[in-house]
Amino acid sequence: MEEKCEGDNKVDDVMLPGFRFHPTDEELVAFYLRRKIQGRALPIELIKQVDIYKYDPWDLPKFATTGEKEWYFYCPRDRKYRNSARPNRVTGAGFWKATGTDRPIYSSEGTKCIGLKKSLVFYRGRAAKGIKTDWMMHEFRLPSIPADSNPPNKKFLDRTIPPNVLLL
Amino acid sequence: MEEKCEGDNKVDDVMLPGFRFHPTDEELVAFYLRRKIQGRALPIELIKQVDIYKYDPWDLPKFATTGEKEWYFYCPRDRKYRNSARPNRVTGAGFWKATGTDRPIYSSEGTKCIGLKKSLVFYRGRAAKGIKTDWMMHEFRLPSIPADSNPPNKKFLDRTIPPNVLLL
Repeated sequence: MEEKCEGDNKVDDVMLPGFRFHPTDEELVAFYLRRKIQGRALPIELIKQVDIYKYDPWDLPKFATTGEKEWYFYCPRDRKYRNSARPNRVTGAGFWKATGTDRPIYSSEGTKCIGLKKSLVFYRGRAAKGIKTDWMMHEFRLPSIPADSNPPNKKFLDRTIPPNVLLL
Repeated sequence: MEEKCEGDNKVDDVMLPGFRFHPTDEELVAFYLRRKIQGRALPIELIKQVDIYKYDPWDLPKFATTGEKEWYFYCPRDRKYRNSARPNRVTGAGFWKATGTDRPIYSSEGTKCIGLKKSLVFYRGRAAKGIKTDWMMHEFRLPSIPADSNPPNKKFLDRTIPPNVLLL
């Protein structure tokens, strides 16, 4: 029996590339960060908790579950820096420095602010003499914990997305 | 029989949001655009062919198969504009204007240029008096068709990604 010829329109049975984990800011704060803070586990550990300041950005991708040029981590907020003059966000080889101001993340269903986003750039070396690199991260946090939500896990966590190699 | 108590670590059977079609530049040119030019059909029509200049950007999302803030289209290249003084990329309500120069897209396996990317902004009104909007598109094309590839479909197509509402 001869195979049916479908000419140029023959459909290949191929895998379609391009589908990946690429959450919106809203999904990151309203689902992943909120659930983490509430201590509600997910079927897959899609985002691992890592103290990212213990590592330089190029050492972080290997800890991530998913990602090619962007990686997602939960990172605990370290209270000791809050009222301290000690430079924050320092790693072995350099430091993370915020760029611009924190931007609000609004719910797509309304004008409610559901989170805040801070963008940071990694500098090699120490403050004042640091050399800017292409490593960026976007840090997400909840704006505040409403009194009525009573989360089981009081530890406040940053949802941190380091590092992202910028395409120059 | 009593249900096993898993305490705070109880795993919810939930859908994990954040998985979507978000191809890399390389996937767009090396797979989707190349196959389109070669006339090789895919099991799903993930990217539709639309003459995008017949529409204003806000009318385009409804034609797309997938996308929330980014939409993907194939758009035929219109040869008549090439040697003409007539303004190119004009729509009913405005026009698309290139911003910056074309950027090469390199294969992740080497330094070979596999495509070119042009970014454009939509302006309301007519040239010189146009008012800039937040609508952007990224246009992808193959750098050239090598003599030995002999594609079945000679029509040269742009892979166009309009429009993308920029988050301000």
